Amino acid sequence: MEKRTPLPVADAVNRVMERRTSKDIEWVPIEEAGERFLGEDIVADHDVPPFDKSPYDGFAIIADDTMKASRESPVTLEVISEIGAGSVFNEKVYHGQAVRIMTGAKIPDDCDAVVMLELARTYTENEQDFIDIKRPFYTHDNISFQGEDTQKGTSLVSKGTSIHPGITALLATFGYAQVPVAKKPVVGVIATGSELLDIKEPLQPGKIRNSNAYMILAQVQKAGGEAKYFGTLTDDFEKCLQAVKDALSEVDILLTTGGVSVGDYDYIPAILEKLEAEVLFNKVAMRPGSVTTVASLGDQMIYGLSGNPSACYVGFELFVRPIIRNALYTAAPHLRKSKARLGADFPKPNPFMRFVRAKLVDDDGHYTAVPAGLDKSGSVTSLSEANAFIVLPGGTRGYQTDMTVDVLLLNEEEGSEWPWENIVPYYR
Amino acid sequence: MEKRTPLPVADAVNRVMERRTSKDIEWVPIEEAGERFLGEDIVADHDVPPFDKSPYDGFAIIADDTMKASRESPVTLEVISEIGAGSVFNEKVYHGQAVRIMTGAKIPDDCDAVVMLELARTYTENEQDFIDIKRPFYTHDNISFQGEDTQKGTSLVSKGTSIHPGITALLATFGYAQVPVAKKPVVGVIATGSELLDIKEPLQPGKIRNSNAYMILAQVQKAGGEAKYFGTLTDDFEKCLQAVKDALSEVDILLTTGGVSVGDYDYIPAILEKLEAEVLFNKVAMRPGSVTTVASLGDQMIYGLSGNPSACYVGFELFVRPIIRNALYTAAPHLRKSKARLGADFPKPNPFMRFVRAKLVDDDGHYTAVPAGLDKSGSVTSLSEANAFIVLPGGTRGYQTDMTVDVLLLNEEEGSEWPWENIVPYYR
Repeated sequence: MEKRTPLPVADAVNRVMERRTSKDIEWVPIEEAGERFLGEDIVADHDVPPFDKSPYDGFAIIADDTMKASRESPVTLEVISEIGAGSVFNEKVYHGQAVRIMTGAKIPDDCDAVVMLELARTYTENEQDFIDIKRPFYTHDNISFQGEDTQKGTSLVSKGTSIHPGITALLATFGYAQVPVAKKPVVGVIATGSELLDIKEPLQPGKIRNSNAYMILAQVQKAGGEAKYFGTLTDDFEKCLQAVKDALSEVDILLTTGGVSVGDYDYIPAILEKLEAEVLFNKVAMRPGSVTTVASLGDQMIYGLSGNPSACYVGFELFVRPIIRNALYTAAPHLRKSKARLGADFPKPNPFMRFVRAKLVDDDGHYTAVPAGLDKSGSVTSLSEANAFIVLPGGTRGYQTDMTVDVLLLNEEEGSEWPWENIVPYYR
Repeated sequence: MEKRTPLPVADAVNRVMERRTSKDIEWVPIEEAGERFLGEDIVADHDVPPFDKSPYDGFAIIADDTMKASRESPVTLEVISEIGAGSVFNEKVYHGQAVRIMTGAKIPDDCDAVVMLELARTYTENEQDFIDIKRPFYTHDNISFQGEDTQKGTSLVSKGTSIHPGITALLATFGYAQVPVAKKPVVGVIATGSELLDIKEPLQPGKIRNSNAYMILAQVQKAGGEAKYFGTLTDDFEKCLQAVKDALSEVDILLTTGGVSVGDYDYIPAILEKLEAEVLFNKVAMRPGSVTTVASLGDQMIYGLSGNPSACYVGFELFVRPIIRNALYTAAPHLRKSKARLGADFPKPNPFMRFVRAKLVDDDGHYTAVPAGLDKSGSVTSLSEANAFIVLPGGTRGYQTDMTVDVLLLNEEEGSEWPWENIVPYYR
């Protein structure tokens, strides 16, 4: 067994980010674009509004006609036509005339103001409609001007942005029936460990069900990748090697879980050597997850994540998620960093940086980070509650309740560009 | 046109929540359960760990044997076998013996402590392995006990919880190859308005592309519903009525957008009357979205959302989202409420409660809510930036920068049970 030198977390993430996988775009119908990541910037192909339009139901008029209007001597205008939303009035409007106009309809060329319905007294004489107006209106009153919201050619949303409903509205407005999105990187998952039962198998003495593989598959999907499961390997080296080779022919990124603990029946280092993969690191100065291995093979990445559920989870979020998000053109591929009040004592110092699964409690906009569940490294139940990691730097001191600490948020769409600077707990 | 009395927002939401649609569960493979909502509580079908196991690589021993061990006079034990993870050692272990044990393996019945690998000196004599131990170990040292993480029968996660990767790990651990999830309510979308062009059509004078329908379809999917698009209706009443009837035969909830503004060619009220639907309200004391209509027909809901993009968006999030989430068993179906510093002045009082599309800016865990884009009611671009609504109660006063205001978060998985109490901006 080779000697493993623990690498600081930031250095390890950095080494991973230097080896990015390739990226590509594909076009999908707008109805299927939700939660995908934009593969190109959205550019306005026309002004918004595309024409001068009425923001109200009312009457399009020539403002000049109302200059002398007052309560005592209203101005009377002849209503010559009506414009529904979606219709256009192409005829001439003369002084003394008005046109009934619906919300959103185009202002007739000769008109330059709109009188709201409720400010006009309407009446009919000899089958002709009229309105009385009791105050002056001025040029441009109550008109939504062409381009006032958005001008043609404006870049509206950057590629790499996750498509939420507000962006879908923009895409529809600008005619994107097909949307350019980042192709999902294909991420394969292989579980190793002879103690693993399939999820469908009944329990047996000494064995546990394979929860890591399904957890990572879900993490891959959540990060935006396409997950592919290659099953569980057992202890035959040649079979393992062949399975890894087969999987590599189908994926951009291959994740293995289990089999990286020193002393276990661990084939991953030997397999990486056989493949002539370049090992970027095989030990990280972090808890849990110190035995994470990452290797690079051409433009593919191979990960040896721990068999311990929490270590596996942390290893994924720190080292795999940003690679997937990077392939989705995201400028901020890492977990989003924020600050929270520490809700528990961590008196025991640890030389390694710790990632404590935590639940953020929102007290009127002030967040407290409380450790989730037992926070024992083998606990699966604590993972189910966590929505953040508390990040505690390694060193010679512990940390106390009420300190302000860095947290990494697990459920946020938006990310951080680089969360690894200035991680220092402090008292506010 | 009937007279419309504006209803306070909380009352309107309340009327909607009294008419819940039916709910049901279905079973899906665990690989497809991500982001679905649990249809039943997850209950532990076995203890975790399921047996006493070793948390370390090392040696299983009988603690008593080491009582007199010291640096000066180490105790020597004979290593009689080796237990890999997933294997079980069923033979007898006698005093003076030890068994090599891997992380996660089951403790032999006769052993009651584990010595970590690095605390034992190993050597071989006459092809027999031995270890020397230099300090006493005590009963239960270094053992992960059966059930110490989770006991059989414990209810672990409540129904109505969104399935994220940590929950997937739990589901796998407890053998849920198929997962009971809430059936997605089927939500139909019909757009009305003769000014609407299909997304694929080139622009025409006076017309705009139909962005609302695609936006709502995305909102439905994001809320957890199954979205079904029924296209755009034009101005023929009988055709509209038939289209609504046809759609109602396929959906749990029907959303229409457009055609509810007073003065527009508005068929929705007449259609609701023909259907003998019970109108819960047709005007809400809110901006934007005051012309939102909601009706109930048996166990179906029919919504008339505004044709204005922002009003339509707000109407959906306030009145449709909680109905969808309720059908997904969620106890907190409304948008999650939090507090933030107001990042702009709103000097003009408004009698109606305002929902201002905003971007939350995170300054080391302190959130400031800044209005997104222009915040003009017709703006689609501002919707693309917003991740929250600033909620400003109606009344006779405006609001100033630096006040602490309520915000409703648009991208949070977790919701509020009832966000409508105590909405009062204040200075901290």
